[in-house]
Amino acid sequence: MVGSIANSLVELGEDNTTPMVPLVDNVGTTCLAITEPEVGKEAVEAKDASIEDVLVKYVEHLKERTQHHLGYPYNLDFDYGSVIAKLSGFSINNLGDPFIESNYGVHSRQFEVAVLDWFAHLWEINKQDYWGYVTSCGTEGNLHGILVGREVFPDGILYASKETHYSVFKAARMYRMECVKVETLVSGEISWEDLQAKLLLNRNKPAIVNANIGTTVKGAVDDLDKVIQILERNGFKDRFYIHCDSALFGLMMPFFNQAPKITFKKPIGSVSVSGHKFIGCPMPCGVVITRSIYEKKLSDFNQVEYLASVDSTIMGSRNGLAPVLLWHGLSRKGYKGLRKAAQKCLRNAIYLKERLRESGISALLNPLSSTVVFERPIDPTFIQQWQLACEGNIAHVVVMPNITITKIDEFIEELLEMREAWFRGGKIAKPCVAENIGRENCLCELHKI
Amino acid sequence: MVGSIANSLVELGEDNTTPMVPLVDNVGTTCLAITEPEVGKEAVEAKDASIEDVLVKYVEHLKERTQHHLGYPYNLDFDYGSVIAKLSGFSINNLGDPFIESNYGVHSRQFEVAVLDWFAHLWEINKQDYWGYVTSCGTEGNLHGILVGREVFPDGILYASKETHYSVFKAARMYRMECVKVETLVSGEISWEDLQAKLLLNRNKPAIVNANIGTTVKGAVDDLDKVIQILERNGFKDRFYIHCDSALFGLMMPFFNQAPKITFKKPIGSVSVSGHKFIGCPMPCGVVITRSIYEKKLSDFNQVEYLASVDSTIMGSRNGLAPVLLWHGLSRKGYKGLRKAAQKCLRNAIYLKERLRESGISALLNPLSSTVVFERPIDPTFIQQWQLACEGNIAHVVVMPNITITKIDEFIEELLEMREAWFRGGKIAKPCVAENIGRENCLCELHKI
Repeated sequence: MVGSIANSLVELGEDNTTPMVPLVDNVGTTCLAITEPEVGKEAVEAKDASIEDVLVKYVEHLKERTQHHLGYPYNLDFDYGSVIAKLSGFSINNLGDPFIESNYGVHSRQFEVAVLDWFAHLWEINKQDYWGYVTSCGTEGNLHGILVGREVFPDGILYASKETHYSVFKAARMYRMECVKVETLVSGEISWEDLQAKLLLNRNKPAIVNANIGTTVKGAVDDLDKVIQILERNGFKDRFYIHCDSALFGLMMPFFNQAPKITFKKPIGSVSVSGHKFIGCPMPCGVVITRSIYEKKLSDFNQVEYLASVDSTIMGSRNGLAPVLLWHGLSRKGYKGLRKAAQKCLRNAIYLKERLRESGISALLNPLSSTVVFERPIDPTFIQQWQLACEGNIAHVVVMPNITITKIDEFIEELLEMREAWFRGGKIAKPCVAENIGRENCLCELHKI
Repeated sequence: MVGSIANSLVELGEDNTTPMVPLVDNVGTTCLAITEPEVGKEAVEAKDASIEDVLVKYVEHLKERTQHHLGYPYNLDFDYGSVIAKLSGFSINNLGDPFIESNYGVHSRQFEVAVLDWFAHLWEINKQDYWGYVTSCGTEGNLHGILVGREVFPDGILYASKETHYSVFKAARMYRMECVKVETLVSGEISWEDLQAKLLLNRNKPAIVNANIGTTVKGAVDDLDKVIQILERNGFKDRFYIHCDSALFGLMMPFFNQAPKITFKKPIGSVSVSGHKFIGCPMPCGVVITRSIYEKKLSDFNQVEYLASVDSTIMGSRNGLAPVLLWHGLSRKGYKGLRKAAQKCLRNAIYLKERLRESGISALLNPLSSTVVFERPIDPTFIQQWQLACEGNIAHVVVMPNITITKIDEFIEELLEMREAWFRGGKIAKPCVAENIGRENCLCELHKI
């Protein structure tokens, strides 16, 4: 894993007075050791200058890395500079419940609740019927949703497709829940046949189902109506809880024409979304919304007199800056702005897929998704250069609002140039990825038409 | 709970164009609803102006609240403005393991590992023997430490004193662990007698003990040597795991003369500390350190190919700004600066306790602690005004570096003035708090000497 990042970090430290200590277990990372400051005005000035120097170089490094990023679903194009400048001197902490004010006054609940109301409206649940909070990341939203499911059905079995985000399996392990992995279709969607078969093997226990509204790797969407139908017709009526992991798509799908709705009018229990993905945010954050009737199950056990509040959140202390930034972003963009951005992502994703395919590169783009899956590039340096996320034979690009046509062209050109070398101008056969993304999307010698 | 905070928030919105929606379930909080922006240059400018207006008023509110804050262990005096200004345009995310670089290049692992190394050195564990990460708050550190304990001893029983932070009991519930509450002494320290008695009732199962290095309410420190001694002499040798919740004191105690050491040379399993408390940070964060031999137990189950990393952390996405700020704070302050600040806190805490007692107010200050516990003020408005944390008959002030003698004097004067009114110049008897803080600290009619 020694690639361009590692090298640039080593460079970062080379002409820096802070000693660089390479780590034994840490291939590719070099730490900027903290040294004890010396006494005296000159020493303090020298120390401050050396810190400044590290930061300036770090910023250059971040700029370059931000420019060459395609693999993770993060919109890296945002500008909260003026808001953050105003608030960076305060320790804003939304301790405990968003709806119950604690004694700690340096909070941002008035912004947080506005953000929650906005999402509740988006996902169609009334103010008095929902509970939720701004989380520290998508994982926390999944951890919360699945915990609510477990509290509703303590002996419930968790069902999640094998292409589910790893945080869901982590939750099962943390919470000591029985967990059944369900097969997926080539698209990445949950296999209905397998879900039904596995439900029937466990008829005696309630079902807690994680539905993926956009899988991590292929951006596949599980059909909520179908999940509900399968549950109900197999004897699970009133004995199921559905958590929707909508990390990325929870904010995009509502803006696609003809996309199925993420709505609490369907019998779902909770929805979580990330705040740093489609909207963009300088720190990971997210939102989880659940039904207020369930929240009581958690809060009864979590009265905290010390805070004069209730703590039903996973984390106790919660970053109060994130809700203000989300409030700012949503207030300025509005539904219209987000719709425009979401549709642009879809268009650019189609452009990327077409450019890949016309260049003879196997690629898949699921409907309702801006995640373009394609043959994994051979050279790890290239993967690192563009920060592609990979799994097995495939890699993906998640087209976010900051991924422009110009950037896509730059990427494609570089990829094609590299491929010439990797496949020696066609002398080496291209890999078959039919198993990963389907025959119809594979352009290997065997499958291309 | 309608007090000064609620009122000031209502005022915040009064002359603001954004509609203020009072929440049904949310006494004392008024949310700043997000409205859809209108189209057109003028409408956009008006919207931006209204957003700016909300933020300017919010900043004024935060300033006032920051000035009148005594109850929570947060050092509100820090200045990372220039660092944050440099970094606020990037989405820095330390996905997964701090020691294994993922494909996502916009990270701050080189700073994070430096911070971890610094704490490992402080708590005396070698680089190759520890594992840890920068968490999103103290709770995450406790959740991680206790999870490690449970993975080491899957059938272990969690023992925690009843004055333990609520996150530990939340962990027990989340992790489906058997949990035994242990009595405390008046000081807040764990009762050795009761710990021994309860251990003996459960000899057949390993013990996972949460030791408080500073309880939340009284700042009491459990004696690690004694905990270990009790475990070993009651047949738990090699069958126990100790997690140290050092949220506040983990960074202060090492700088007090004659304080017992928090050290991995003792058979402890993990230590967690908050980053936004004694050091001060604009967002909650923390550090957890455990032994690398244990970390393997978690990581074996959490290989994440998609990230090209391992995820043994509770949260998957991790705020990359916090490690840079911690690195900056620790680099500039160093051991010397922290020692000076910690000792000043102790001196000021003694000053506060003495001023309270000479004014006839019952008060307790534990050794090694800067948490001054005293009679709960009668008027909730006063409690909110100074943001005191309360439990039953008692309130506390946690003396942090930003709590100066001037501020203490201001607080005492206001308190004395209010008390004149509350107790009608002595016509109403002062409450007895002997049960909460001990006879020797109680100045009620019955107990004062």
